[in-house]
Amino acid sequence: MKVHVGPVAQPELEAAVVAAGAELSSAEEANALVWFGGEPSRFGSYDRPDLEWVQLPSAGIESWVASGALREDLTFTSAAGTFAQTVAEHTLGLMLAGARQLAAMARATTWQRPEGMRSLAGSTVGIIGAGGIGKALIEMLRPFGVRVLAVNRSGKPVLGAERTWPSEDADGVRELLAESDFVVVAAPATSATSKLIDAAALRAMKSDAWLINIARGSLVDTEALVEALDAGRIGGAALDVTDPEPLPEGHPLFTHPRALISPHTANPPSLQMPALARRVEENVRRHIAGQPLLGLVDVAAGY
Amino acid sequence: MKVHVGPVAQPELEAAVVAAGAELSSAEEANALVWFGGEPSRFGSYDRPDLEWVQLPSAGIESWVASGALREDLTFTSAAGTFAQTVAEHTLGLMLAGARQLAAMARATTWQRPEGMRSLAGSTVGIIGAGGIGKALIEMLRPFGVRVLAVNRSGKPVLGAERTWPSEDADGVRELLAESDFVVVAAPATSATSKLIDAAALRAMKSDAWLINIARGSLVDTEALVEALDAGRIGGAALDVTDPEPLPEGHPLFTHPRALISPHTANPPSLQMPALARRVEENVRRHIAGQPLLGLVDVAAGY
Repeated sequence: MKVHVGPVAQPELEAAVVAAGAELSSAEEANALVWFGGEPSRFGSYDRPDLEWVQLPSAGIESWVASGALREDLTFTSAAGTFAQTVAEHTLGLMLAGARQLAAMARATTWQRPEGMRSLAGSTVGIIGAGGIGKALIEMLRPFGVRVLAVNRSGKPVLGAERTWPSEDADGVRELLAESDFVVVAAPATSATSKLIDAAALRAMKSDAWLINIARGSLVDTEALVEALDAGRIGGAALDVTDPEPLPEGHPLFTHPRALISPHTANPPSLQMPALARRVEENVRRHIAGQPLLGLVDVAAGY
Repeated sequence: MKVHVGPVAQPELEAAVVAAGAELSSAEEANALVWFGGEPSRFGSYDRPDLEWVQLPSAGIESWVASGALREDLTFTSAAGTFAQTVAEHTLGLMLAGARQLAAMARATTWQRPEGMRSLAGSTVGIIGAGGIGKALIEMLRPFGVRVLAVNRSGKPVLGAERTWPSEDADGVRELLAESDFVVVAAPATSATSKLIDAAALRAMKSDAWLINIARGSLVDTEALVEALDAGRIGGAALDVTDPEPLPEGHPLFTHPRALISPHTANPPSLQMPALARRVEENVRRHIAGQPLLGLVDVAAGY
């Protein structure tokens, strides 16, 4: 099996290819391509008849969907799940920061207890889009004794969740929103999930619940969120992703007393390459052995 | 068995006494006293010959030690361990806030990634004073795959810790400081632990390690800490307790880019009463049954 890493060469990924037992090759000769360091618009010149499989470097692939570069008769894999552990860790950090009002404390210059401190223990955590990140998060939540509610595409019960609804079940999603003390948005960005958390969804939430978005900014209606925060209709919001992104300087969400913005750092660059290299090695090994690849993209569904 | 709750009556604690099968009584007639709402200096007028046991309302009892109100021929119990779970939760929140630079992000008004983001996963966590809080924290750290080092009074191995040193083993403490990415201070405040984290201890720490203090302010030399932070000798500090406490307005620790102050909120008042009531009920039950009480104070040791 011949694998090319590009458009930009990346030594760790190349080492992973070799460790898995494949041969590094030019783009012209490759059966498989490990995409690294280029916009999707450059894919056309790499898309040759012999190509069987393309490993993409990120978990979210909406720029690939938008570019039209994906085609159904070619196998694409994303890095979905690769970064689940580190993103889940960040998610838990944002949840605890919300529960313990750490953002308000970080901004304080006097010794005073903010309002609204609470405990994760005993709370209900609703995970919208409970895939790899959600599962890693549920593991991390186990010692806290929380109740987990989940929504995923299929509705297939998520281990550790008391209930799981399919994403098309609007009543189920509404029930999750209404019962959760922490609503964690972890679903892929698709046309179906665009502004999933809109004014109505925010109104369905408890008045002291925190919204945590570690998926994509497009899943939350930013204007509706600011309005809900200003009106005190929800407890707070911790967002690793925003719409627009980057959030423009001076945006009210930066300074809202019950908001915390982490600038798309759930999966810090310093931790990405080792995780991606492990995934590349595993997938090359699987491809050679004829086993199912991890992170298979459903081109029709767009993720 | 006759129990008095006072100097201030507290309905939840009184209900706990009754639920455990004891009788509420005046202070004059009581065999046991559940202390609530008074300074230790007021204890003298409650200290009668018939008194067998006094349940104190907090985990840290240094004000009782300082007051001289404790006497060795009377059984005192503290609330030690009662709040372990909620304090451990706060501790994990502070650790994640440090790892993910959430304080810097909370203060930012533009979209920019701070330096020094890291992962809890794969790190070494050193717990100085690994009692009830430390054990609860170790449970919470399990899903992260961290290496735990511990110091406790006896040196008796702490479950889940790779190594445990007795607190008198200065070399062991030094080794913990030198190897930990997160140094968690959770030891009781005694004369032996005063300024345990001094300039030398801070110099022993890794240059990117975070110091987390959820014990008492007196365990950390504040001036030395500010100096170490300014010099970049440690990664950062998250403190739930300070010396002096409250920290005076405008103190540099409030605004230091790599410091986070939570104003003694690891165990928020809103969560204390239910936990204390559960402890009172359990201890009254044990006292009636002649079983060992929880949180027994070693009057000679002072905690």
